[in-house]
Amino acid sequence: MKRHFDADLDDLRGRLLRMGSLCEEMVHYAVKVVVEREESYLGDVQEWERQVNALHIEIDEVCLRLIALHQPAADDLRLIAAAIKINSDLERVGDQAVNIAETGVYLCKEPTIKLGDIPRMVEVAAGMLKDALDAFARGDVELAREVIQRDDEEDRLKSQTFNELVHLMQRDASAIQRGMDIILIARNLERIADHATNVAEDVIFMVLGKDIRHSVEKI
Amino acid sequence: MKRHFDADLDDLRGRLLRMGSLCEEMVHYAVKVVVEREESYLGDVQEWERQVNALHIEIDEVCLRLIALHQPAADDLRLIAAAIKINSDLERVGDQAVNIAETGVYLCKEPTIKLGDIPRMVEVAAGMLKDALDAFARGDVELAREVIQRDDEEDRLKSQTFNELVHLMQRDASAIQRGMDIILIARNLERIADHATNVAEDVIFMVLGKDIRHSVEKI
Repeated sequence: MKRHFDADLDDLRGRLLRMGSLCEEMVHYAVKVVVEREESYLGDVQEWERQVNALHIEIDEVCLRLIALHQPAADDLRLIAAAIKINSDLERVGDQAVNIAETGVYLCKEPTIKLGDIPRMVEVAAGMLKDALDAFARGDVELAREVIQRDDEEDRLKSQTFNELVHLMQRDASAIQRGMDIILIARNLERIADHATNVAEDVIFMVLGKDIRHSVEKI
Repeated sequence: MKRHFDADLDDLRGRLLRMGSLCEEMVHYAVKVVVEREESYLGDVQEWERQVNALHIEIDEVCLRLIALHQPAADDLRLIAAAIKINSDLERVGDQAVNIAETGVYLCKEPTIKLGDIPRMVEVAAGMLKDALDAFARGDVELAREVIQRDDEEDRLKSQTFNELVHLMQRDASAIQRGMDIILIARNLERIADHATNVAEDVIFMVLGKDIRHSVEKI
C-alpha cells in the first residue's frame, strides 16, 4: 500500500516541476523580446513571474508542513531538503528572465545591435535548465552530471560575447549603451546556467546522499 | 533544564554567524583590491572562500541531521529552514566577493578609473549584510525590516554608477574595458545587498512565521 506521505511527496515534486516549466517559458519568452524585438512578451513574462512567486511561497510551506507532520528521514528528508533549495534556485531563474525581458524592451526602442553568442547561450542555458528538471523528476544522476559539465561551455560563450561586444563598443561609441545591455543579458543567461547547475547538484545529493558542491572532482 | 537540542541549535547559529563573518571579511578585502589597488588581498579572499565553502556543506549536513534526530516543529523547524536558506545566500555572497577581487586584480594592472558610487555601494551592502546577520543572531524583526528598506538605496546607487560610467565610456573609448569592469563590480555589490535582503526576509519568517517575500507591503 502506498503511504499517504508518498502521495504528498509526489505532489511536492509536481509543484516544483510546474514551477520549473513556468521558468522555462519565462526564459524562452524573455529572450524572444530581445531576439524578435517583440516587447509585448514582457507582459507574459511578468504574469508567469507572479505564478512562480506564488509557487515559491507555497512550496516552502509544503516542505515545512511535510517535515513537521511526517518526520521524514534518509531519502525522504533529502528530497524535501533538495526541494527547498531547488525552489529558491527556480525563483531566481524567474528573476533573471524578468531582467532579460525588461532590458529587451529597452533595446526594442533602439537600433539593432549584434547579439554575439546570445542565441547559443540561450540554447545552452535553457537546455541545462530543462535537463536539470528532468534529472530531478527521474532521479537521474547521469543526466545531472551532464548538466554540470555543460556549465563550462556557457562560461566560454559569455566571455566570447563580452570580448566581441567590448570591441564593438570601442569602434562605435554610439553602441556603448546597447552593448552594455547585451553584456548584462549574457550575465543573466550565465546565471540561469549556474542555477541549473545548482539544481543538478541538488539532484545528485538527493539521490546519492553525497554533497559534490565545491569539490574539485565534480564529475 | 536546557534541552540537548537547544545546544545543537546554538551550535548551528554559531556556525552560520562564523560563515557570515567570513563573508563580511571577504567583501571588505575584495573591495580593497579595487579601491586600494592592492592585488595581494585576492589570496586572502580565496582562502576565506575555501573556509566558507567548507561551512556551506557542513551547515547543510547539520540541518538535515537535526531534522532527522529531533523531529523539530514550529519555531525550531523554522530556524532550521531559515538556516538552510541563509547558508545558501551566504555562500553566494562569498562568490560575489571572489568575482569582485578577481576583477579588481585585472584593474590593478590598468590605469586608474573613476569608481562612481562604488565606495558608497560597498558601505550600504556591507552594512546590510552585517545588520541582517545581527538580526538573525538576535531574532530582531525591526532590524531585519530596516535592512530590507535599505535595498532601494543600493539599487539607486547602482543605476547612478551605471549612467556615470556609460557617459565616461562614451567620451573615452580607451576606458570601455575598465568601465565595464566597474559596472560588473556594481552589479556584484547589488547582488550582495539582494542576498542580505533575503537573509533579512528569512529572519522575519523565522521569528514571526510569516512569509513576506513577494508581498507588495514588504514593511
